[in-house]
Amino acid sequence: MAEALTLHEDPRSGNCYKIRLTAALLGLPLATRAYDIMKGETRTPEFLATVNANGRIPVLQIGEGADARFLPESNAACWYLAHGSHLIPEDRFAQADMLRWMFFEQYNHEPNVATLRFWLRFVGEANLSPEQRAQVMPKRIAGSAALDLMNRQLAGHAFFCGEGVTLADIALFAYTHVAEEGGFVLGDYPHINAWIARMQALPGFVPMD
Amino acid sequence: MAEALTLHEDPRSGNCYKIRLTAALLGLPLATRAYDIMKGETRTPEFLATVNANGRIPVLQIGEGADARFLPESNAACWYLAHGSHLIPEDRFAQADMLRWMFFEQYNHEPNVATLRFWLRFVGEANLSPEQRAQVMPKRIAGSAALDLMNRQLAGHAFFCGEGVTLADIALFAYTHVAEEGGFVLGDYPHINAWIARMQALPGFVPMD
Repeated sequence: MAEALTLHEDPRSGNCYKIRLTAALLGLPLATRAYDIMKGETRTPEFLATVNANGRIPVLQIGEGADARFLPESNAACWYLAHGSHLIPEDRFAQADMLRWMFFEQYNHEPNVATLRFWLRFVGEANLSPEQRAQVMPKRIAGSAALDLMNRQLAGHAFFCGEGVTLADIALFAYTHVAEEGGFVLGDYPHINAWIARMQALPGFVPMD
Repeated sequence: MAEALTLHEDPRSGNCYKIRLTAALLGLPLATRAYDIMKGETRTPEFLATVNANGRIPVLQIGEGADARFLPESNAACWYLAHGSHLIPEDRFAQADMLRWMFFEQYNHEPNVATLRFWLRFVGEANLSPEQRAQVMPKRIAGSAALDLMNRQLAGHAFFCGEGVTLADIALFAYTHVAEEGGFVLGDYPHINAWIARMQALPGFVPMD
């Protein structure tokens, strides 16, 4: 029998949604346990000692009780779930190219597109610190550049690594489809919009909320 | 016959060094082509059109001429090189756990530890913009937290994913072993220091410079 899977998450987080979407597309049962990151619930001594010493969600828990194993980092958790499935290409170059987009997501996309959404929708512009306020414009420029690169890639392909959906699409979909909540204008990126519609039409697709 | 491998790099970049170290540990021949990022050599129209539309190095080139394929993102290039080798665990959880540390490196470590090294050693503190200057202390705190988490992980293991070296170690070694160039004090992290010595003793190890 397969081991029980539990997602430690904040339902508003796109990083958590990646894992729920991967499980849904694969038909895998996934229990969830919710935390409120705005209330510091992932920084408690118990959370740091048992779930993730880094104090962050999402964390995928595999198994239960004393044998439970914990896997932080959204894209690593998606990799675990999709092991051996059609969401990870078998070809050597295609697999590395998929990871290329997943590392791009964490380095060039998430710190800009997701952080501005978090600041503007959840923290509130009036509550930003002077340091955060100074970073809004650099993050706007870097996030727009990331979206532009995605739009150009999608001009020639239905999905990021060709004609079939992979984890690269799931990783990039999570914060892209709600990028307007961070002040980005998705109408500027027609190929991204067409890809969002393709993602939402996938069998098993679940929305973020 | 194996395809020719060429690394488009700036030799001062730790992200480029990851790929050279992976190739060295595996005994793979790797040609290099150098660019000076301080002179904008990765933002020329030719580079953007043929090597990487994202304007960044490293890029691993596989093959030559019209059939050449290009793979940006250092950790994805390492994955390609190490395919089927001992540097990637076969076990499902161990493989995901290795990727967990590689995503941690790109999200929590590189933007802090590597960026401060770049600013302080190559740009020069006197030349930082006001926005950059405001980010020095947040990056110092976040980089120190990343090093502390690494130190605690290495307290119980010879390498990040257990007793054998994997790509997680290579990814994290690149900027950690030169972290003092960014103002971090490695003496604060004894388990990191012992791990650096283990890395430098690996058969085939090559130094950064």
